[in-house]
Amino acid sequence: MKIIKQKNFDLPKFLEENKLIIKSHLEKYLEIRFPQTIWEAMRYTVLSNGKMIRPVLTLESARVCGGEIENVIPAACAIEMIHSQSLIHDDLPCMDNDDHRRGNPTNHKAFGEATAVLTGDALISLAYQVIIENTPEKIDRNAVLQTLLELSKAAGPSGIVAGQIIDIQSENRDIDFATLDYIHIHKTGTLFKCAMRTGAILSSASAEKLKALTEYGQLIGYAFQIADDILDIKGTKESLGKTPGKDKISGKNTHPLLYGLSGSIEEVERLCSSAQQILIENNLDSPALIGIAGGITLKVTG
Amino acid sequence: MKIIKQKNFDLPKFLEENKLIIKSHLEKYLEIRFPQTIWEAMRYTVLSNGKMIRPVLTLESARVCGGEIENVIPAACAIEMIHSQSLIHDDLPCMDNDDHRRGNPTNHKAFGEATAVLTGDALISLAYQVIIENTPEKIDRNAVLQTLLELSKAAGPSGIVAGQIIDIQSENRDIDFATLDYIHIHKTGTLFKCAMRTGAILSSASAEKLKALTEYGQLIGYAFQIADDILDIKGTKESLGKTPGKDKISGKNTHPLLYGLSGSIEEVERLCSSAQQILIENNLDSPALIGIAGGITLKVTG
Repeated sequence: MKIIKQKNFDLPKFLEENKLIIKSHLEKYLEIRFPQTIWEAMRYTVLSNGKMIRPVLTLESARVCGGEIENVIPAACAIEMIHSQSLIHDDLPCMDNDDHRRGNPTNHKAFGEATAVLTGDALISLAYQVIIENTPEKIDRNAVLQTLLELSKAAGPSGIVAGQIIDIQSENRDIDFATLDYIHIHKTGTLFKCAMRTGAILSSASAEKLKALTEYGQLIGYAFQIADDILDIKGTKESLGKTPGKDKISGKNTHPLLYGLSGSIEEVERLCSSAQQILIENNLDSPALIGIAGGITLKVTG
Repeated sequence: MKIIKQKNFDLPKFLEENKLIIKSHLEKYLEIRFPQTIWEAMRYTVLSNGKMIRPVLTLESARVCGGEIENVIPAACAIEMIHSQSLIHDDLPCMDNDDHRRGNPTNHKAFGEATAVLTGDALISLAYQVIIENTPEKIDRNAVLQTLLELSKAAGPSGIVAGQIIDIQSENRDIDFATLDYIHIHKTGTLFKCAMRTGAILSSASAEKLKALTEYGQLIGYAFQIADDILDIKGTKESLGKTPGKDKISGKNTHPLLYGLSGSIEEVERLCSSAQQILIENNLDSPALIGIAGGITLKVTG
């Protein structure tokens, strides 16, 4: 299978427009209150120049299921909060000890370690609060509960935390392919999957559509993580916004380390192509979702 | 107003029996899975020898509203998880830097800092998951959502985190009475209040009962924190399970420091007596709730 390239779809424009929708709502949910420090510290990371790809996927997942984006915006923003939380805690000195993220000092460098720990904690609970307080009343209450459940599984000890703990335990040790898969699937895959599922669940998608969009999310989530590892090798500090080559220095097990650089690039292509095929086979007509899968491939081949 | 003492109610027996109910369910919710470390680290703190007073309050709040405890057990356990999470993160070197808790090494001393950060994160999301997955189907979905909202407000940047950040910022600085109140109300009061409200909400309590139990929770939550500060001065390492005099050494602002020891003891009596009166005025017949308020007073006077 080959990656589908679309001539008449402007992916950068789509991503920018949708990111602005998310950003304007995050601005509102994170309006500064007392105690100022915690709200400033949350804004510092959540509203820094991230790609916001996960919440954009939630919006598009809703659209392709015939739903209104208004219904999923709170959940989409909550997913970005959880993602930001995981970055803040991952960057801590006791974890990956990173000083830079997206071209800026990391949260604990800007606010101190204690505040960074609390900022992450605040973002987790605020994510649930934002969904409950802002999802429109007309949405079925069971769908809202299902959304909260998906988020808790993705963020907690069955999701991101599970991936992160195995990642930490694997540093400076030889690991097998299955363990690397486990880390990637849990650290990155679960939240991508959750982003897709949430958009579908809140849009009353059929079981078939939900299943297809779940698979799409898993595939591009995994591809996204491998691409990130590849760029850590190929990229510059300016293009990455963080120190390149960091994975190797810190003894991280990455896909290119185990499968080689060209093997990893091929894997990204294979995963993204499969993701595109799933959309086509299930009549999920979304140039944006086709384009996002293509875009991940282009990052490592282009 | 004087503290009501009950001759025919065995408070220690009540607390022990109810704690066993909570503990047996926490054992189930925290059954060890892969990745083992994170589940072991959660169990280490949650199932250490804590008093589990908050979840016991949730059970009794349900009973006094005519509800069945089966309906509130998941929420009660979730509240204990959030409490444990706040302890784990508070004890970190970058926060209060405590080596002992409940007579054992703190979580990061036993499992390392990275795991302790992740354990706290895991417990927050697991708390929501446990409520959604285990609250009986017959409970109104809006009541479940309201419970999750109460928890998110108590745990997040409007609750515990708000109190903790102001506490950190106030160390080694003179603060006024209002700031000390703010810290206590948010660090401890909100979760006690949440414990009482949750039991009532899931038991379809009337607005009047909910209001009265909310006030009771706020009052004893505040009293509980002041009593804790008093015991930090009066207690021994054996009786506390942690280093006494730690507050003074670390420059913590405590109630006894601002109001004096006898003034603080009087305040505990006043708060607990008010809490008892609220129950009586609202015909909330619970020897256990009367006894718990009395018990907090007894800790500092007896």
